[in-house]
Amino acid sequence: MPETIFSKILRGEIPCHKVYEDAHTFAFLDIFPLSAGHTLVIPRKQVARLDELDEVSAAAMGVALVRVAKAVLRVTGATAYNVLQNNGPEAHQAVFHVHFHIIPKHADGSGLGIGWKAGKLESQAGRELAARVASAIA
Amino acid sequence: MPETIFSKILRGEIPCHKVYEDAHTFAFLDIFPLSAGHTLVIPRKQVARLDELDEVSAAAMGVALVRVAKAVLRVTGATAYNVLQNNGPEAHQAVFHVHFHIIPKHADGSGLGIGWKAGKLESQAGRELAARVASAIA
Repeated sequence: MPETIFSKILRGEIPCHKVYEDAHTFAFLDIFPLSAGHTLVIPRKQVARLDELDEVSAAAMGVALVRVAKAVLRVTGATAYNVLQNNGPEAHQAVFHVHFHIIPKHADGSGLGIGWKAGKLESQAGRELAARVASAIA
Repeated sequence: MPETIFSKILRGEIPCHKVYEDAHTFAFLDIFPLSAGHTLVIPRKQVARLDELDEVSAAAMGVALVRVAKAVLRVTGATAYNVLQNNGPEAHQAVFHVHFHIIPKHADGSGLGIGWKAGKLESQAGRELAARVASAIA
């Protein structure tokens, strides 16, 4: 997979507004923010999609998300926020290096817009699908 | 914080279509799915918001997300998907127990709708904000 702008940011070849880093993760402000405090948390490992991430990096990402979210809330004063991670161009991914967006939702309405057209899972279909997903993990 | 329907699901008092569990996490199909395969990954720990989650649970959530996402893709045939986690009613949270949505984006267009009104972060403002967030973590 070709390298992205995030690899250059990780190597310090392109500047960024860094807010956090550890052995496996790195976080910086999105320069095209949906709201004040919009921050990206990425793994140092260069993989395009979350399902390709190794478990050591995945665990570190979980911890980094909580640490960065706490700090973004404290500084911006936001209490509501969305965490979003997109995989594939059809799902709005634009940079093909895993990244979690932490997006504060402010009182002025700025933040992530969400379109939610929910269906209803029928009982029998749900039972069958869950069994297939469970076996795919096991 | 009051308990939610997810506590009852975790205790087995309300049925669900379970797809995965480990010592710290639990995953099941969303019964009001945005698309086929829409799955929820939750911590066993009963906390409302991601920023309240302990680091052991947070690390386990990171790992569970990758495991469940892989299986959902394999079974549904989707290649694109969004991972979304909402905090606060203003940010579309409806059940006040941390949950990550894994939402496949299918060729028929079903999946998460995203509204993206991006601004531009000015250099000086970015520098100041990043420094404040970084100190709030340290």
